[in-house]
Amino acid sequence: MDLVDKIAIVGVGLIGGSFALACKKNALCKQVIGVDLNPAHLATALSLGIIDEVLTLDQAIKEAQLVVIAIPVNATRMLLPLILSKINTQLVVDLGSTKSGICKEVAQHVNRAFFVAAHPIAGTENSGPEAAIANLFENKTTIICNSNETGREQLKLIEQLFNGMEMKLAYMDAEEHDRHIAYVSHLSHISSFVLGKTVLEIEKDEQNIFTMAGSGFASTVRLAKSSPDMWAPIFQQNKPALKQALAAYIKNLQLFQELIEAGDEAALKAIMIEANAIRKVIP
Amino acid sequence: MDLVDKIAIVGVGLIGGSFALACKKNALCKQVIGVDLNPAHLATALSLGIIDEVLTLDQAIKEAQLVVIAIPVNATRMLLPLILSKINTQLVVDLGSTKSGICKEVAQHVNRAFFVAAHPIAGTENSGPEAAIANLFENKTTIICNSNETGREQLKLIEQLFNGMEMKLAYMDAEEHDRHIAYVSHLSHISSFVLGKTVLEIEKDEQNIFTMAGSGFASTVRLAKSSPDMWAPIFQQNKPALKQALAAYIKNLQLFQELIEAGDEAALKAIMIEANAIRKVIP
Repeated sequence: MDLVDKIAIVGVGLIGGSFALACKKNALCKQVIGVDLNPAHLATALSLGIIDEVLTLDQAIKEAQLVVIAIPVNATRMLLPLILSKINTQLVVDLGSTKSGICKEVAQHVNRAFFVAAHPIAGTENSGPEAAIANLFENKTTIICNSNETGREQLKLIEQLFNGMEMKLAYMDAEEHDRHIAYVSHLSHISSFVLGKTVLEIEKDEQNIFTMAGSGFASTVRLAKSSPDMWAPIFQQNKPALKQALAAYIKNLQLFQELIEAGDEAALKAIMIEANAIRKVIP
Repeated sequence: MDLVDKIAIVGVGLIGGSFALACKKNALCKQVIGVDLNPAHLATALSLGIIDEVLTLDQAIKEAQLVVIAIPVNATRMLLPLILSKINTQLVVDLGSTKSGICKEVAQHVNRAFFVAAHPIAGTENSGPEAAIANLFENKTTIICNSNETGREQLKLIEQLFNGMEMKLAYMDAEEHDRHIAYVSHLSHISSFVLGKTVLEIEKDEQNIFTMAGSGFASTVRLAKSSPDMWAPIFQQNKPALKQALAAYIKNLQLFQELIEAGDEAALKAIMIEANAIRKVIP
């Protein structure tokens, strides 16, 4: 049962492409329109069956009942007010990783009720339409921010859509979302990017990494493969929360360094036992 | 075809237990003797069929043709000279994650030729005999350090044994090993332990981690579940190399923090593009 007739995906990369595939897989819409600044991405998305046709943003907004924005968060912040000004009854949803700035940007917009600020907690280190996966969102959680600012009908439709792709839903204030996600997602991306850089700087011939890297290093450095174009704007949009998170991380690393230096094995073990508690939360 | 009759495993945890299971799976020995300070681990290892009998260290050395040491690296450093003093023709191999201190400890030992300093690059975040896996070592690399100090026959036997469990072999100077492994393995464990601690400190009620943690955070924080008893001694044994690695990591994090603060998106992207190169090395 199609929830909407036509969906426009603005940004046919990992997230937008996966959203399109999930809609198709679960028969949530009849047709998917693709919009992207990158013609090569549009061609790939067409050939992979992620989208059914390519239109300009203006045309797509006119044709679609749902506009999905899945582009870097700074671009969303610029584009969202313009899109909201062009709609009549269409629903607009953004899927970015920061929510506070975007929600502030459109808080007073006459069409605010037609906008849903969503963050599906799903992704991989890959990017572009080739990285799109039909079941990326299955059994994952979408966080909807400031849902009281979205119209009741609009909220219901997007909830049905996310539920239709087997997602769980959580609700949160946008600023609270950004503060927590700085620790739970953004900080781990920075720790991984910087770990990758640090190891590559030292191991210049790379042969030692080939020989000596185990699954542990691979796991810890996986996010260092993520898209700089996507992540640089996220770090900028979430600057205040990240400032605190990074300061806390660096301070704890310095403490660990001092304890190694001092040979204080008991204190080092105490910190690691504390960290072991993550097992309860992430089994 | 059994390469040896009886193998003694000193430390029947993740690594020692997996070594025993790999020997059994590949019919590399007839019988496995277990030695451990922890009677519960011995009972579990017996009941899981990891070991066939329990003996004291003295008895085990007398009965076995190969003694495998898989205990925390500081304990190995104390115990290894004593074990080497008790052998006649038995081969002794240690599987720890630091090699320089251990090699120095026995460099002048009359039985040095019967000792192999090995580091199989394999593991998980779990520990104890329940964590042992028969194919943990398959298609992984074992690094053998200071192989010229091991007797030719002894080296050949251990190479056949590692090859028999489908491992690749690499050879390295012990100090070189420790210097590189500080970056490629030990640093990623510290980055993960400290990430886990930092996030748990902030997210005290843990519900937000449940809701907001994606596969990226799970991957980056996985090593924070590792055994403190195993890792505290590794950090101590590899203090000089880790001091450099941690200093470089913290310095790069501080640079990243300053660039976020300054809003220098171009410089942030340049660092992330640099880090993306890890894709070539860890596909």
